[in-house]
Amino acid sequence: MIETQQNLEALRQLMRNFKVDAVIVPGTDPHQSEYLCDHWKFRDWLTGFTGSNGTAVVTRDRAALWTDSRYFLQAEMQLEDSGFELVKESIPGEPTLQEWLLEVLEPEAVIAIDGRLFSCVEANRLERFCGENGFMLATEFYPADRIWANRPARPASLAFVHDEAIAGETVDSKVERVMEIVEAQGADAMFIASLDEIAWLYNLRAADIEFTPVAIAYALVSNKERSIFIDKEKVTAEVEQHFKKYSVRVRDYDEVMRFLERRSEHETMLIDANRVSDSLANAMPCMKIYAASPIVALKAVKNEVQIAGFRRAMELDGAALVRTFKWLEENVASESIDEIDVWNRARDERARDEEYRDESFGMICGYREHGAIVHYEADEESASTLRPEGMLLIDTGAQYVMGTTDITRTITLGNPSEQEKHDFTLVLKGHLALSRAKWPAGLCGVNLDLLARQPLWNEGMNFLHGTGHGVGHFLGVHEGPQGIRMQQNPTSLEPGMIVSNEPGLYKAGQYGIRTENLVLVVEAEKTQDFGDFYKFETLTLFPYDVRLIDRDMLTAEEIGQINDYHAMVRERLTPHLAPDEALWLEQKTQPLTV
Amino acid sequence: MIETQQNLEALRQLMRNFKVDAVIVPGTDPHQSEYLCDHWKFRDWLTGFTGSNGTAVVTRDRAALWTDSRYFLQAEMQLEDSGFELVKESIPGEPTLQEWLLEVLEPEAVIAIDGRLFSCVEANRLERFCGENGFMLATEFYPADRIWANRPARPASLAFVHDEAIAGETVDSKVERVMEIVEAQGADAMFIASLDEIAWLYNLRAADIEFTPVAIAYALVSNKERSIFIDKEKVTAEVEQHFKKYSVRVRDYDEVMRFLERRSEHETMLIDANRVSDSLANAMPCMKIYAASPIVALKAVKNEVQIAGFRRAMELDGAALVRTFKWLEENVASESIDEIDVWNRARDERARDEEYRDESFGMICGYREHGAIVHYEADEESASTLRPEGMLLIDTGAQYVMGTTDITRTITLGNPSEQEKHDFTLVLKGHLALSRAKWPAGLCGVNLDLLARQPLWNEGMNFLHGTGHGVGHFLGVHEGPQGIRMQQNPTSLEPGMIVSNEPGLYKAGQYGIRTENLVLVVEAEKTQDFGDFYKFETLTLFPYDVRLIDRDMLTAEEIGQINDYHAMVRERLTPHLAPDEALWLEQKTQPLTV
Repeated sequence: MIETQQNLEALRQLMRNFKVDAVIVPGTDPHQSEYLCDHWKFRDWLTGFTGSNGTAVVTRDRAALWTDSRYFLQAEMQLEDSGFELVKESIPGEPTLQEWLLEVLEPEAVIAIDGRLFSCVEANRLERFCGENGFMLATEFYPADRIWANRPARPASLAFVHDEAIAGETVDSKVERVMEIVEAQGADAMFIASLDEIAWLYNLRAADIEFTPVAIAYALVSNKERSIFIDKEKVTAEVEQHFKKYSVRVRDYDEVMRFLERRSEHETMLIDANRVSDSLANAMPCMKIYAASPIVALKAVKNEVQIAGFRRAMELDGAALVRTFKWLEENVASESIDEIDVWNRARDERARDEEYRDESFGMICGYREHGAIVHYEADEESASTLRPEGMLLIDTGAQYVMGTTDITRTITLGNPSEQEKHDFTLVLKGHLALSRAKWPAGLCGVNLDLLARQPLWNEGMNFLHGTGHGVGHFLGVHEGPQGIRMQQNPTSLEPGMIVSNEPGLYKAGQYGIRTENLVLVVEAEKTQDFGDFYKFETLTLFPYDVRLIDRDMLTAEEIGQINDYHAMVRERLTPHLAPDEALWLEQKTQPLTV
Repeated sequence: MIETQQNLEALRQLMRNFKVDAVIVPGTDPHQSEYLCDHWKFRDWLTGFTGSNGTAVVTRDRAALWTDSRYFLQAEMQLEDSGFELVKESIPGEPTLQEWLLEVLEPEAVIAIDGRLFSCVEANRLERFCGENGFMLATEFYPADRIWANRPARPASLAFVHDEAIAGETVDSKVERVMEIVEAQGADAMFIASLDEIAWLYNLRAADIEFTPVAIAYALVSNKERSIFIDKEKVTAEVEQHFKKYSVRVRDYDEVMRFLERRSEHETMLIDANRVSDSLANAMPCMKIYAASPIVALKAVKNEVQIAGFRRAMELDGAALVRTFKWLEENVASESIDEIDVWNRARDERARDEEYRDESFGMICGYREHGAIVHYEADEESASTLRPEGMLLIDTGAQYVMGTTDITRTITLGNPSEQEKHDFTLVLKGHLALSRAKWPAGLCGVNLDLLARQPLWNEGMNFLHGTGHGVGHFLGVHEGPQGIRMQQNPTSLEPGMIVSNEPGLYKAGQYGIRTENLVLVVEAEKTQDFGDFYKFETLTLFPYDVRLIDRDMLTAEEIGQINDYHAMVRERLTPHLAPDEALWLEQKTQPLTV
């Protein structure tokens, strides 16, 4: 606490030196990444708050932090005595960041940001706000560079080539497809700041960031040049060879700004305004076309090689989870196992496969009432010890070199109540309905979302997160542009796209239920009158806990669907299992009778 | 044909006089109405084509007309020897209007339009097109005023007051609610060109246009003034009294342009750019805020008085349809009845009620293969004679002073095939599923649309029109902003909104099936954790044809739903029926056994 107070005072000293009245400190990096490396956790250093969503604002005499309902409890604890007050987002009566600034600042106040951390869209919004309200906006205020003593270095993991035999496409082919769209948009070149886009385009991976196997880099691509801006010590001989083969020029990461400043004025650059920082976009003297990055749409559609990789990753992951759940079930009554032990065990079981690289996100292992906290992450203080009773929600995923996994299962550790079975079966009915959907080409997630929710709606219940998100291929576990949500999203679901199917139900203080598989969009039928129809193929391989099913609530069709799925799980996982594990799985996948 | 050739030549002569190279002639009126009065059917006069959607373009030596697939056959016939070539919209290989202009015009060509017929949005789009391609756009070219000999006069029906006892709200209250939104948008006043918006705002109706009981007028409203621009001979003593009571100043319809030209430059006018013409918007020297008209959203939500009116209209309409269908069933074998006879009979039966004013659209009465033509309208040449066999689709609606109806029933005239029953039941399952939906507040039509289509999708079929449209209160039978469609639309479904529920299935050359009721959004349940839930209450009262139901395809829930609906239909309609009609209805609404 005392440390953050010193940090806050150091920032205020800098503000006084530069005649700055307010500083906005976002929780982002220059690449708009979902997960940050420590080097860019300046907001954490300043405030003590470590949640994934939070923006701090500091004035000469006040300091506040905005975060959403997932983090209210955590923020309250972490901000105690920090000098920061907590402001709760989307809670009636709590001011927005802009309303707060309007209240606390004098006219003509100077608001400063590090423009390298704000996307063009965010910076424009802020500029408009300042313009309309008579504030000055300074976008070149870099407190992290000046006052952060002992700042962690940028990560320096060794990059490695993402083999074409796994990627299913060469760098040449990807660049060609990207440039076709870039030129159709009227641009000559595209500048890329998103780490997963660069990883996809250049078939490159690294371990700079937890959970997402990317390298910290920028890239610029045109028909005449292919550049990557990356710390050179990351470039191994193998990677250098790969870059040479595909004519990718390696430039130093820190060179990017000067490089962009020297671009020709006659060039037209495509920039994704949500993904490139205001500072870099402003540095370019060339003409600019702001448009969605074509890579986002291209990498969302997986090729056959990638899909085969996902299938194999699901087998390895399913087998590791069989070992984990079997161990848990057999030992929960006799040993002291807590939520963190389960997390560690799953990691260890997965790590037995040499293609395993990392988790794809921190496990959510929520026993009983912890399961109702949607983004719960157990730590030493919170971790519950499991007992042979009650419900356990486990949401976990892995990065294998040939595919990324993400699965949620809710199981009973013993004596499920009728209410638990009823609720579990409602969620399962929605999950099953979505997974057997068939729909005409061209529709979007919002057209199908109801299927996962209707059993809950009929009883006046719902879940307030999305039903499905896209998933990268040995890349981010959350990937756009497609999704399945109540909210509208213009991206149609196309064959080759992978999405999660994860309805849930959360009863605060009691338990949480979620059932999640990854599914692949595939062609179902071609018709003369109504065009093509699509459906889902389920990729994830692990049984549902049939002890939680209330069979009277299921139709014959649903029971058949569960039995077919369990037969597939058994068939695909058994070759990866030891005899006792195979026996356990066989028991878990016994057909239900109608 | 020869006549239209003369008309075309007259237009070309005018074009030469004014040095115009191309003219775009839309099929709209200055109010962007769905149905036009004859006075504004200049495109029909010029081309001979009478379909509701079609845009003509004339150059010095070519002439073409764009329309959609509903009208391909009709347009081919009507355009024969007219000098106009048909261009099919949305058909691969066929040019868009803009592509065609790019091909046939020389650089710097002058394109002329009557800007009074183009909304601001459309005119802007055209201006941008001309600007980008080096054409000149002239927006004050008025050929209809100059060359249309024997042009029909503007309609001169007498306006009448829409009684507050029916409207459920005074003009004062409506103006107040509208101005609250107008001022919140930062404007002082709103200019209104949409006829149904004016009718709603001033509680005024007329019979200027077929099917929609509105007066041709403009309006301007602020906190200081309420004006209507209308041909004064329409203003009866009753209407004058009404306008006086509510301080509505009557101005001449033709005065509107000069009136707008004299507005203060310091005033800010709210203009709906999709509903006000380019000419009128440009005439105003005041500041302008372009935003959706608040009236559209306000009039979509019906008050309790209006809803009671709809309920009564449904009883009158259902009883009239009982008489019509009974007559048809009892006489189809013995008399020569064709599609137009059915149309006339329904009109006559409805006209027995003194609250009946008009149909709400021309009946679609499609026997056998005609039923598969979604917008089929029988005429003397096309009308099929009905026989006691095969399927008949009837889509019809009425304007009663207390409510507007719109219903579709598909019946068998005898010996339904298994295929017909199967298809009818699929459509019915979708219709029933949508009508029993329950969903959390805030969702939109696209969130529910799947319910009406899923039984068809499961068999690789679909219908390509919307599932549901809004309906006005003794106003347009098609009314926004809400709807239920595969396409996304940001308007949430709110209690008090009425929408149609009309899935269908069309087998070209064989038959068409559609089942349509109007439904009202009502509150279903208030929950603590998940907010309010909404559901539909069915307004339309007429039995489904149970002879077309394949009971094996229905669940017990669906059979119960049909039986409950039929019991309500019987109970509500019987008081309006003669004994023999009541007996017929009783037979038609016998409960199905599970």
